[in-house]
Amino acid sequence: MSDTVFEAVYREIFPFWEKLSDTVRALICQNSKALNFTKGKNIHNGSECSGVVIVRSGCLRLYIMSDEGKEITLYRLHRMDMCMLSASCVLDAVTFDVFLDVEEDSECFLISGPAFVAAAKRNPEVRIFALETAVSRFSDVMWVMQQILFMSMDKRLAIFLLDESARTGSDTISLTHGQIALYIGSAREVVSRMLKYFANEGIVEVFRGGIRILDKKRLRKLAL
Amino acid sequence: MSDTVFEAVYREIFPFWEKLSDTVRALICQNSKALNFTKGKNIHNGSECSGVVIVRSGCLRLYIMSDEGKEITLYRLHRMDMCMLSASCVLDAVTFDVFLDVEEDSECFLISGPAFVAAAKRNPEVRIFALETAVSRFSDVMWVMQQILFMSMDKRLAIFLLDESARTGSDTISLTHGQIALYIGSAREVVSRMLKYFANEGIVEVFRGGIRILDKKRLRKLAL
Repeated sequence: MSDTVFEAVYREIFPFWEKLSDTVRALICQNSKALNFTKGKNIHNGSECSGVVIVRSGCLRLYIMSDEGKEITLYRLHRMDMCMLSASCVLDAVTFDVFLDVEEDSECFLISGPAFVAAAKRNPEVRIFALETAVSRFSDVMWVMQQILFMSMDKRLAIFLLDESARTGSDTISLTHGQIALYIGSAREVVSRMLKYFANEGIVEVFRGGIRILDKKRLRKLAL
Repeated sequence: MSDTVFEAVYREIFPFWEKLSDTVRALICQNSKALNFTKGKNIHNGSECSGVVIVRSGCLRLYIMSDEGKEITLYRLHRMDMCMLSASCVLDAVTFDVFLDVEEDSECFLISGPAFVAAAKRNPEVRIFALETAVSRFSDVMWVMQQILFMSMDKRLAIFLLDESARTGSDTISLTHGQIALYIGSAREVVSRMLKYFANEGIVEVFRGGIRILDKKRLRKLAL
């Protein structure tokens, strides 16, 4: 892919782009790749430096995993979102392992870690941008943590269903109970039990492969 | 307190100190206070900007709290540790509320938020330092999160007792079950039950107001 394609995107997403020298801009573009990932693929796995990932289309899921394979979703990345936690060589201070999976077929740009580090060494703005991106994700993660640790399951599930419905613009949520459990950091059995309760109350209808929201007003009340 | 006292400490803890102009150094020192806090006091409460806190002696505890008052300890600050999360005006990207309590009588230096922001505006090194401090705490918090979400209670308790014994240099841990529960993000009843199990196994001895480690070897095995 030609440097101009990368450059057009980087100009849009990197507030520091205009401050870089031509040499540094060329370095970043020449060390960029456009990649297509199919659903289900694991892109980043633990502590190695996979580089900076920029989502052009599709959806990626970032999560942590226990020794026993239990996963907690920290956040999802959509179009024009950027993942810095996969570039461990850029952020020395990040010492925990994350995993990045392809949730929907995705096109991504990938900037090599060393090229980004070289740019950060010459331009403090690049370093500040990388750190600020990480710190703002810190806030997202704290929100997830508070959801999991503090909030009752009915509330968490109600919020998830409303968010998902708002995101897709549909009252039908095409996810299995197991997938929902993964998103909200719970167990499939717990989600199934709670959905059955919601269905009994006439709030949702559960069908094979998905959930349909019937009473958004009551769901919103539960989410308060 | 005279500026020289602050300056001596700041030279030690701020890697950027020598790069600041005399004016900025004077600004920071003139907007610094030395404060004594007694055990139990709350120093920072939610989202207002309390400034940058530097611990000179004693111990502070940083935590998050649910609407119902449930607390999760994120980390503790000891001598020469610094708290950036209490300076919300310095870190715009931090959008979650934290609380800071005095755990042991403490002497602290406090730099006003606006003075630190002014220094960060003139010197990118200051901004980078503040962000890096926050990102490295992000890693600490992820560790806590993994402990709480993934790890079995016996392991968490064993690690806590060993850490505490190493920190104080004593096999006697003078904390109540409720305090331990607060540290490891559990309930008092759960900690008491687990300590009773440890005691039955001859690993610890539980007495009024504390726990004595009897078999460090087995405790280490549990912590693996």
